[in-house]
Amino acid sequence: MLRMGAAATGMAVAGRTVDAWAGHDPVLPTPDRPPPSSKLFSHAETRLAFRNHGMHLEFLDKPITPVASHFQLIHFDIPQLDDRGYSITVKGRVNKPLTLSLEDLKRRKTVKQPSIMECAGNGRSFAHPRSIYVPWFNEAIGVFEYTGTPLKPILQEAGLLDDATEVVFTGHDDGIDLGVHHHFERALPIDEAMLDGVILAWEANGHPLPPAHGFPLRLVVPTWYGMASVKWLKAITVIDHPFQGVQQKLVYRMTFSGGDAGRPIQKKSVRAAMKPPGYPDLISRYRFVESGNVELRGMAWSGWGPIRKVEVSDDDRRTWRPAVLEEPVSPHAWTPWRFNWQARPGARILSCRATDVTGNIQPLRAIWNVQGMAQNGVERWGVRVL
Amino acid sequence: MLRMGAAATGMAVAGRTVDAWAGHDPVLPTPDRPPPSSKLFSHAETRLAFRNHGMHLEFLDKPITPVASHFQLIHFDIPQLDDRGYSITVKGRVNKPLTLSLEDLKRRKTVKQPSIMECAGNGRSFAHPRSIYVPWFNEAIGVFEYTGTPLKPILQEAGLLDDATEVVFTGHDDGIDLGVHHHFERALPIDEAMLDGVILAWEANGHPLPPAHGFPLRLVVPTWYGMASVKWLKAITVIDHPFQGVQQKLVYRMTFSGGDAGRPIQKKSVRAAMKPPGYPDLISRYRFVESGNVELRGMAWSGWGPIRKVEVSDDDRRTWRPAVLEEPVSPHAWTPWRFNWQARPGARILSCRATDVTGNIQPLRAIWNVQGMAQNGVERWGVRVL
Repeated sequence: MLRMGAAATGMAVAGRTVDAWAGHDPVLPTPDRPPPSSKLFSHAETRLAFRNHGMHLEFLDKPITPVASHFQLIHFDIPQLDDRGYSITVKGRVNKPLTLSLEDLKRRKTVKQPSIMECAGNGRSFAHPRSIYVPWFNEAIGVFEYTGTPLKPILQEAGLLDDATEVVFTGHDDGIDLGVHHHFERALPIDEAMLDGVILAWEANGHPLPPAHGFPLRLVVPTWYGMASVKWLKAITVIDHPFQGVQQKLVYRMTFSGGDAGRPIQKKSVRAAMKPPGYPDLISRYRFVESGNVELRGMAWSGWGPIRKVEVSDDDRRTWRPAVLEEPVSPHAWTPWRFNWQARPGARILSCRATDVTGNIQPLRAIWNVQGMAQNGVERWGVRVL
Repeated sequence: MLRMGAAATGMAVAGRTVDAWAGHDPVLPTPDRPPPSSKLFSHAETRLAFRNHGMHLEFLDKPITPVASHFQLIHFDIPQLDDRGYSITVKGRVNKPLTLSLEDLKRRKTVKQPSIMECAGNGRSFAHPRSIYVPWFNEAIGVFEYTGTPLKPILQEAGLLDDATEVVFTGHDDGIDLGVHHHFERALPIDEAMLDGVILAWEANGHPLPPAHGFPLRLVVPTWYGMASVKWLKAITVIDHPFQGVQQKLVYRMTFSGGDAGRPIQKKSVRAAMKPPGYPDLISRYRFVESGNVELRGMAWSGWGPIRKVEVSDDDRRTWRPAVLEEPVSPHAWTPWRFNWQARPGARILSCRATDVTGNIQPLRAIWNVQGMAQNGVERWGVRVL
């Protein structure tokens, strides 16, 4: 197996250690970490694909993704929380620990902020071989308009001590990963936690967060991959050392071999996505388009800065022509693009490729890593022009 | 391949015929109907699993499923419809064809009706071998509280002619299935269309239907599998002959060989579902439970009548003890059950089994058919009691 258990790596992690293999019924298609390419692997990943909803890509021409069509990544079970009596604590290396109810938070400065969310595993299924996890293709994306309050003034009110280095966000959700029973927890460096756009949110698209998206409160970190945007928020803890949680030190890493401790996954890589044109075949999702003028549309984003350019290819990435960019509805959302395509009859492969202001450009083919993280190779859509 | 194209069956179906294989890029993992057990098969099904969201089973202790946690089956693309100017037509073998706007419908008698929805393919992944389709395990279920108006008075107002035998419901969604380009369409016999509980719905859980669930209007047929509850409703057509649409005559059938025309899938089979107890391992979804008194909870339903009995087993279906039933929130919803389980340390396999008033009982093991339809074998949950 490519991915190691916590015990195997010798990594010190907090929480109770449990062997998820012991006592497992061999008939059930759900063992922990089955060998890649086995039937059990496929079954376990398919179950994860049903639980972790993909975005309906036909909404890639809309700045805001409708509820029930936005992607979700749910690590354990969805906690069933009550917004009455709900509060979070702000503690650790601070002058003044705080307890904040939802009402307290709603009385603070409120922002409405469309923000792009993308799972670090988006594109994973294009990496071979790779370790088992949610087998995303291109659908682990979405933009909600969140309602919330900026995090920075809350940390300032609590008063960071001089030795503070990271802020840990703890969710109410708990379960076992890599053999360790723990609550989902992720940390941000202080500087990142204080950035504009980092908010505590209680609404998506004008309604209370759906339970699957973190009801009643979640963190939103627009520039990082989704694992940083902790859902079902329970506590904010300021610490003076590098955080050693399972999800920080073991799971979300860019690794190149089984023994490689790797480097952390943080900001979103640059990426463009296309609304699949025409109409689909139900099973294959292969597309059919009438010949003539076809307006292709999509979105592009990067955790490293605004999008500078999007290009489109209809010959499987050989030649590229520029798309027209539009203004994003928010600096934390994605950038719409459109391209007037002359669709000539025959089989075509469509791709789009984004470049951001810092010069990052998508590779024509994803750069491999063990866990299939941050795979931003350009998409390929098979289309038959009729 | 187990499933045949329309051309191969010689079945007369309406719509333009397209070969989804021609022009397909062999590098892309998305051909139509790849051989079972191939990598292409697995990729195509995984894509379908991301598009067709599963229910989050941790809400099986709640009568109403939260938005973004209810299952969805979307055959083609989600149509992007505007509720302003939207209307449906009622036509065919009627005395007085009708055109009804959403406002017209909302002025009629309005009901709030929690209704159970289940995909005919729920349980498909437990059938081997089987044809390719959405590879559901146990998660293609959910209950929304729909707001809508009964269908029967609308049909009465239009006035059914004496030769009327079926009512065809046409959606705005279109695409290719089994080589034929068509709108999604399904028919009900007149008697079924006139039943109490059959409604045209515009809200789920007090809000406009999400686009993924049929915005702005869908049919809800509580006793039949979900394919009957046509989404994005465009037209209602009364006919005097058996409907020959692709989804009626070819797709939703119980077949036992490649050449078998089969019998139609209609009412939901009896079934019980359990909220998985304890906490999960992230990848395997295997469950961990503390020993002692554990209250197991879940739901049961049948398209053939009310639930009479639910039993629970913790020894892999060898011995059964009765659960306590509660009143459903609606005759069209599911029936809650609870069971006080004495959890002793060790590996256990939990199951639940429902019986309805007409005597239908779940089989201990699903009865196989080619397409994996209506698979209601009892569930098995691997649990380790600590």
